[in-house]
Amino acid sequence: MSTLTSLKEPQFSPHTLNKFATLMAAGNGYLGLRACHEEAYTDQTRGMYLAGFYHRATPSETTELVNLPDVLQMRIELDGEIFTLLSGSIVDYRRELNYANGELVRRLTWLAPNGKRYQINCQRFLSAAQHSLLCSRIAITPLDDSASVTISTGIDATQTNSGRQHLDEISVRVFEQRYLQGCYRTLDGENEVTIASFCAVSPETSNSFFAKNRRLTQHCSASIAKGKTFQLEKTSWISCSRDEGYGAESVLENLINCVKSGYDNLLAESASVWRNYWQRSRVEVISEHSQDQHALDFALYHLFAMTPAHSERCSIAAKGLTGEGYKGHIFWDTEVFLLPFHLMTQPEIARQLLSYRWHNLAGAQAKAQKNGYQGALFPWESAWSGEEETPEFAAINIRTGLRQKVASALAEHHLVADIAWAVDAYYQATLDETFMRERGVTLLLETARFWISRAVEVNGRLELHDVIGPDEYTEHVNNNAYTNYLAYHNVKLALKYGCFDAELKNLAEDFLTRLWLPASDDNQLIEQDDTFFSKPTIDLAKYKTQQGTQAILLDYSRAEVNEMQILKQADVVMLTYMLPWLFTQQQLAANLDYYEPRTIHDSSLSKAIHGVIAARSGRLAQAYQFWQQACLIDLGDDPHSCDDGIHAAATGAIWLGAVQGFAGLTVERGELHLNPHLPQAWRSISFPFVWQGAQVQLRLTSQQISIITTKPLRIVIEGVETEVLHEFVTPVTGSGTTKGECL
Amino acid sequence: MSTLTSLKEPQFSPHTLNKFATLMAAGNGYLGLRACHEEAYTDQTRGMYLAGFYHRATPSETTELVNLPDVLQMRIELDGEIFTLLSGSIVDYRRELNYANGELVRRLTWLAPNGKRYQINCQRFLSAAQHSLLCSRIAITPLDDSASVTISTGIDATQTNSGRQHLDEISVRVFEQRYLQGCYRTLDGENEVTIASFCAVSPETSNSFFAKNRRLTQHCSASIAKGKTFQLEKTSWISCSRDEGYGAESVLENLINCVKSGYDNLLAESASVWRNYWQRSRVEVISEHSQDQHALDFALYHLFAMTPAHSERCSIAAKGLTGEGYKGHIFWDTEVFLLPFHLMTQPEIARQLLSYRWHNLAGAQAKAQKNGYQGALFPWESAWSGEEETPEFAAINIRTGLRQKVASALAEHHLVADIAWAVDAYYQATLDETFMRERGVTLLLETARFWISRAVEVNGRLELHDVIGPDEYTEHVNNNAYTNYLAYHNVKLALKYGCFDAELKNLAEDFLTRLWLPASDDNQLIEQDDTFFSKPTIDLAKYKTQQGTQAILLDYSRAEVNEMQILKQADVVMLTYMLPWLFTQQQLAANLDYYEPRTIHDSSLSKAIHGVIAARSGRLAQAYQFWQQACLIDLGDDPHSCDDGIHAAATGAIWLGAVQGFAGLTVERGELHLNPHLPQAWRSISFPFVWQGAQVQLRLTSQQISIITTKPLRIVIEGVETEVLHEFVTPVTGSGTTKGECL
Repeated sequence: MSTLTSLKEPQFSPHTLNKFATLMAAGNGYLGLRACHEEAYTDQTRGMYLAGFYHRATPSETTELVNLPDVLQMRIELDGEIFTLLSGSIVDYRRELNYANGELVRRLTWLAPNGKRYQINCQRFLSAAQHSLLCSRIAITPLDDSASVTISTGIDATQTNSGRQHLDEISVRVFEQRYLQGCYRTLDGENEVTIASFCAVSPETSNSFFAKNRRLTQHCSASIAKGKTFQLEKTSWISCSRDEGYGAESVLENLINCVKSGYDNLLAESASVWRNYWQRSRVEVISEHSQDQHALDFALYHLFAMTPAHSERCSIAAKGLTGEGYKGHIFWDTEVFLLPFHLMTQPEIARQLLSYRWHNLAGAQAKAQKNGYQGALFPWESAWSGEEETPEFAAINIRTGLRQKVASALAEHHLVADIAWAVDAYYQATLDETFMRERGVTLLLETARFWISRAVEVNGRLELHDVIGPDEYTEHVNNNAYTNYLAYHNVKLALKYGCFDAELKNLAEDFLTRLWLPASDDNQLIEQDDTFFSKPTIDLAKYKTQQGTQAILLDYSRAEVNEMQILKQADVVMLTYMLPWLFTQQQLAANLDYYEPRTIHDSSLSKAIHGVIAARSGRLAQAYQFWQQACLIDLGDDPHSCDDGIHAAATGAIWLGAVQGFAGLTVERGELHLNPHLPQAWRSISFPFVWQGAQVQLRLTSQQISIITTKPLRIVIEGVETEVLHEFVTPVTGSGTTKGECL
Repeated sequence: MSTLTSLKEPQFSPHTLNKFATLMAAGNGYLGLRACHEEAYTDQTRGMYLAGFYHRATPSETTELVNLPDVLQMRIELDGEIFTLLSGSIVDYRRELNYANGELVRRLTWLAPNGKRYQINCQRFLSAAQHSLLCSRIAITPLDDSASVTISTGIDATQTNSGRQHLDEISVRVFEQRYLQGCYRTLDGENEVTIASFCAVSPETSNSFFAKNRRLTQHCSASIAKGKTFQLEKTSWISCSRDEGYGAESVLENLINCVKSGYDNLLAESASVWRNYWQRSRVEVISEHSQDQHALDFALYHLFAMTPAHSERCSIAAKGLTGEGYKGHIFWDTEVFLLPFHLMTQPEIARQLLSYRWHNLAGAQAKAQKNGYQGALFPWESAWSGEEETPEFAAINIRTGLRQKVASALAEHHLVADIAWAVDAYYQATLDETFMRERGVTLLLETARFWISRAVEVNGRLELHDVIGPDEYTEHVNNNAYTNYLAYHNVKLALKYGCFDAELKNLAEDFLTRLWLPASDDNQLIEQDDTFFSKPTIDLAKYKTQQGTQAILLDYSRAEVNEMQILKQADVVMLTYMLPWLFTQQQLAANLDYYEPRTIHDSSLSKAIHGVIAARSGRLAQAYQFWQQACLIDLGDDPHSCDDGIHAAATGAIWLGAVQGFAGLTVERGELHLNPHLPQAWRSISFPFVWQGAQVQLRLTSQQISIITTKPLRIVIEGVETEVLHEFVTPVTGSGTTKGECL
């Protein structure tokens, strides 16, 4: 494996404080920590979040991921000067997130307003080995003179989510004049979180402790000779009442155990987990453009950081654990954009993500019933309980004072079929009969039941009315192609895996027989919904240059946008991605060509999928362009595009674009297919994956396919069924295409 | 009247952000606004408070004055540089609070990191004429080049009290593309506050509006030529649901009316109210030390700003409306240290302050009953309802994890007699029979009933056991001199003014006959309580140098302090201040000499009273020193002594020291007495006061007393009963002293 890249912050800028706080966030799936500086800045949103730790501040608010008490902040005074990079001047500055071990390192030399220079080095990581463990270290060296150093740090529970309070302070303590501990309870009394911290400082340091106004603070003061280094190593243990063995005593015990190891050993322990992860999952490309490898490493770093591998009661939030966007809720993004990566690198995580849905089945059934349907209607936005968390009304329109109903929870039902699609994908990749028997089949049956009950009969055929597809700029339409095809797939899967009673079997067969599936026209085009082709078009050039900003809504109302051929993302393109075996390469290309000019790509889910379809259509240059643009969703120049968190699904889509698009590794009806379409700039791509118990290493160049597997592997390479026993090398022919089978 | 002084901030310092935010706070008795800068600083606590607008965030917290949404903050970008005085450099800087009109003005030249200079002038005031009105103005002039200016400001409801959330957002609106309005409700649903704002900007400015995450924001952008000025005038109207005629529409209407007038006219209107105030109340001294006049002006500025003259349902919080210290609660400070000023300048305010207690009588009666007493036991800490707001337990001891019961609410009962004392003072100064009939007598009777029920019989005499006097370093003692004397005074007043039934009259007379009043010993000393003289003493020099910090509690536990002759403030000295006619000059001096060395003055209420007693004892140098030190409680060099608000009572005590101490104007049993004791550094003191309907102007030098009155005035001048018809001039003889009558 080549050396991992890292994320470098080129310089300190007050304008990009939140962008880099997001990009460089730490995470281990249990905790997420924004990469805020030790010293606070008014423009920087500080945040630490715990997977599944949600709370609703007041009845009028939405359940959200709680911003936990802050243990990272340090108020630093050097010879009486308050350290901030806004004052004095920065002699040199480097900040780097090491993907290899998850450590964030900042090294800087500060020329204070007093004319003296100080070297300040900061390090931190959230342990990948012990998920409650946060370590940070600061080292300060006065370069020009001896110095007095004062650092105030502790556990600061004045943190809120934009003023929304979630936690009550139960107790704050200092044990043995050294261990800080704060216990907090959500205001509804349901959950607790306890944080313990210890600061290891040089022996000559004087320490004092204070508790006031939701802050428990340790003041450390020391005098440091010129050229000598003052060091503070802060170890924190964060645990919540849902954790096994949780208790204030055990939190303290765990902290003390970690303190004995010290920063460097704890980092090494965490790094070894990261090493395993990279070995199991890294995608390596040799490209003319070094940012391609970086984008892949960035994506996979965050795919690890965001994924609550410790618990099947949690899933992946739309912003991971990096910010408060979308309130930390879980969408279809998880099953469609994130689960495939886990399926091919660590399928037990994919199982957990599906189990999260299974645990929340009761909420989905209740929602279906409440809306007059049968089966399971999963919530559009999901948190801990599985209840629908989408606010009933959108934010107030500040001009009219009106609140619109949020349509997604009412009609964006494709999520139900997406979950079924993911169950099938999981089974194909793992042949995990136990999961299917215990959970998977139930999910398929209950979702199928929903679709059967949702269909309406029109002149003898079944239709799905008043839905919203993935394209949220087109609301309340009939027979959305994506939804109808996926619903069909869903019911078919239920018939395939399920043990129906006779009555339901008849209903399911009738549904499959009579459900209307929008067919291709003479130009191979599939209409997005019943009325789409009849709507007018406008020139979208202006809005395409502002992709991701929803600028169109400044010029047109939602109702107006709805009545034009304007797409946030293209449903039919997405459909050809989801069920590739149904469509020919010609259909892929025709629909891409038709819909893409009508698509603004205001959704971060859009570009990478277009890239995959372009690759599968053999449009390599276009595919590469789409993919590179998709890589810039968070990493691009926009200083504010990810202020409130990374686009989690977009990181999954970076992987999808490389593996399913360029490498052309897809699963079609249980078969593994490989149809490489490497961009011209790429000399090779290689990555590991797992398939039905085999651990496979794949390496592709434009000329050659090389496969090493631990178990015999059946794979269709460019249309040719192949069995790889251990190692296999074959030239690329460029002959394989998708087949376009019938349903 | 000579020109009013002003408060000048010598320079910008990140270390004194909160000190000056407090000292320079705006207030009109209805609203208080900390003098935070337009641009935010992480170390500066922003705050706006509305008198009587309390809320309890969670059941485990205390009711507190709600920190309202922030309308003052502005995020300013100049040519893309975020304006903060931490960055770039400050070419010049002046900030000045004009006591004359309540306007805060800041003028500065900023050299931005881009090398360009900008002149930035900020002005603001809370209107003294329309108490819901806040006006601010910012003017920015690029000095070196044309500039792009972007200001973001609005209504920011992310504000909390140290993370405690009090308000829910009901609605945020923008009317007519210009008027911002936010409506908020306390989480208990009891109260609402609505804020409307308008920004008047130069016509070439482009504006946009956003609402997100509890922030309603207007972005204003403009290009300004070199030397030209960009100006933004922001007018805000803040009103709560307790206001007459409150409603979202009326808030908007009122705002629009004010906007029509503009900043300058609104300031002039407010200034005229201030002018009246100063004419009615200013104390002028000609002193060798200019800070003396400044301290008096400072004190009187805040005495206006903190006083809710608009409502008898509000009283004065311990920190006024300048910060969150003591949660905005009301203590005995109001009746004893603040009411006398109002009594002699605007007695209707004194009546309102007493009416506040009368309205809350039910709570006091309930507290008495709950504690097994009769009558009214007023809460040690009072907010809106009159219920006891003192937390049952103090903050957790972070070392032991234990929470001590807060003793004040349990035993610091002298407050009850202090209120009775103030009722009597009010009647003497006003002869307001209506008030006494309707409210005053009830207060006297109910407080007297309390004392009668609280006394215990020991060998035939009545004693008051287990009390805390004003000296909170001595808890749970029997027969605290201050308490016993004041309780006696209380019951005596009830007998004097009240219409007792026969049974109660007998009980009251018996109480007066048998209550133990600690008598002077051979050295004229009164023992603070039954055991005080038997306790050991220690050298307090170390702690006296750290007055106000409670440093003694770092070396000794409260229990240890309790068992030594260590005083926070001296009860017997306070007693001789409260009931001066009972003690001879020799007694004053003897007790001062005994207790002062044993007093740390950790209470801000201590020094000024010592000054008054020293003056009355003829110790002019000592008196002046005490008074000058008392003037430094907020104005001194300690950068953090008033971070969480001014010491409201201490401002009243500055006035008391000058008027009752140096001018020697006191009231003894209904008679006005004048016994001047001018410090050597003072050439003269002159001030207006009102007495029983007469408006009087008094001027004193060391040689001469000069009085002008609008009505005939009876006054005992240096022991000589005098009737002043209109004007009167007499030499100072130095013969008058306090008499030391019997009870």
